[in-house]
Amino acid sequence: MSTLWLNGRLLDAARARIDPADRGFLLGDGLFETMRAQDGAVPLLARHLARLRAGADVMGIPFEATDAALPKACAALLAANDLVSGPAALRLTLTRGPGPRGLLPPADATPTLLLAAFPAPPPRPPATAAIVTIRRNEHSPTSRLKTLAYQDQILALKEARAAGAEEALMLNTAGRLACASTANLFVVTRDGRLLTPALDEGVLPGITRARVLEAAAKLGIAAEATRIEPAVLDEAEAVFVTSSLTGLRAVVRIEGRRAPLDADHAMVRRLAEAL
Amino acid sequence: MSTLWLNGRLLDAARARIDPADRGFLLGDGLFETMRAQDGAVPLLARHLARLRAGADVMGIPFEATDAALPKACAALLAANDLVSGPAALRLTLTRGPGPRGLLPPADATPTLLLAAFPAPPPRPPATAAIVTIRRNEHSPTSRLKTLAYQDQILALKEARAAGAEEALMLNTAGRLACASTANLFVVTRDGRLLTPALDEGVLPGITRARVLEAAAKLGIAAEATRIEPAVLDEAEAVFVTSSLTGLRAVVRIEGRRAPLDADHAMVRRLAEAL
Repeated sequence: MSTLWLNGRLLDAARARIDPADRGFLLGDGLFETMRAQDGAVPLLARHLARLRAGADVMGIPFEATDAALPKACAALLAANDLVSGPAALRLTLTRGPGPRGLLPPADATPTLLLAAFPAPPPRPPATAAIVTIRRNEHSPTSRLKTLAYQDQILALKEARAAGAEEALMLNTAGRLACASTANLFVVTRDGRLLTPALDEGVLPGITRARVLEAAAKLGIAAEATRIEPAVLDEAEAVFVTSSLTGLRAVVRIEGRRAPLDADHAMVRRLAEAL
Repeated sequence: MSTLWLNGRLLDAARARIDPADRGFLLGDGLFETMRAQDGAVPLLARHLARLRAGADVMGIPFEATDAALPKACAALLAANDLVSGPAALRLTLTRGPGPRGLLPPADATPTLLLAAFPAPPPRPPATAAIVTIRRNEHSPTSRLKTLAYQDQILALKEARAAGAEEALMLNTAGRLACASTANLFVVTRDGRLLTPALDEGVLPGITRARVLEAAAKLGIAAEATRIEPAVLDEAEAVFVTSSLTGLRAVVRIEGRRAPLDADHAMVRRLAEAL
């Protein structure tokens, strides 16, 4: 029986209850973080909490748990689930909590904060990818938040799988590259530059994305967060996607794109080692 | 204490439990219907169930409750909540149910089906409206589904309220009119035509919207579901929004638009009477 941490308490998952009036359940009115744990702790917890807090500010959801309390909660939950050695995964979910019927949030919302622990996913081999028809909406601030609304990404991934690819690449509504279904996107060009879609293209400010850009700066790699047309993929040397759980994952082939991609590119290897 | 209907059973709201692993809660992986009840029954239930079933097909969520079972559930729930005389509101929520971590749905999902009853909202007086910056994404099939993801609409409504208006009008990513925060949009032009944004503009196929178009056909009113530029509002005689709970609601003023709008337009009155 797995154990959850819910609103400050550890409890058996079978006994943990989300209120049917929770606005996270009814309206997707919440945010989450997926975090990598190592040996019973979350090394990048502070960065995840900063992102969650920034998103909660945009949504106007009170986030009252302190940065001091959450490392303890993570450690206790990992221990309770016997996930204290090696890598593991944690998901931290914040919702506005229960509310009356209707769209406008109640003035006195009591947020729901849920922490769940899982075994780490296995390392991912290089992926094939397909550009899907579902677009990322850069005209909404929620495209830059890790909200609970993942239907588009679910449909995008299903579309990619139906096309025989493992990962979905999403364009924004302007037709430029935005991201993968649950990962940020990077392209290495033939002239040795590292490109990733800019945040205002409808992109989640991924923590691994930020760390890759920081590592590139340290390594003297010319990196740019910018607008990227899909045609850039035809001239790419390497493509990879990034996420907190899987780190850097090479893309070996993109359906309908002609460039042979290097799944073991020297620059990508240097970046992965720098993280 | 209010009573809910959850997965086939009536129970006290305080004892009803949503599993913290429910994908509706974690990923917004579900759909809902808001329905108007009258004297203990839901007159348009069949239309709501048809729309829910169509959405569930797109999302690949099994929807196993029969059209025969749900009228009984609605009646029992309304009776249990003492809402059998006059109007009331019901919300039917369908999610994919609990699943393991990750985006792809489990093969053997057991959906969650929740029915909740509420007093009818009071009649809404004519509204002021503002066009907000958050855009509706017509490049996703979820823009035509009543999914659990309402963050954009929550932010849109907050933006309208901050601008001093009661209702938000949303454009799609092409900059054309799409809908209100939780309602469809209609415009009456000076030459006597009735316009509403076409579904492929990123529009939910509202049941009241469909009934208004049906009523217009019967009344010999020239009606069209089409592409509508915001400039059309400057030349409008009347604007109204429609939803299952509030019916037809006139818009009396749109921030920044010069046309004086008729809050008691003869055509709109005829349509309202025809429903």
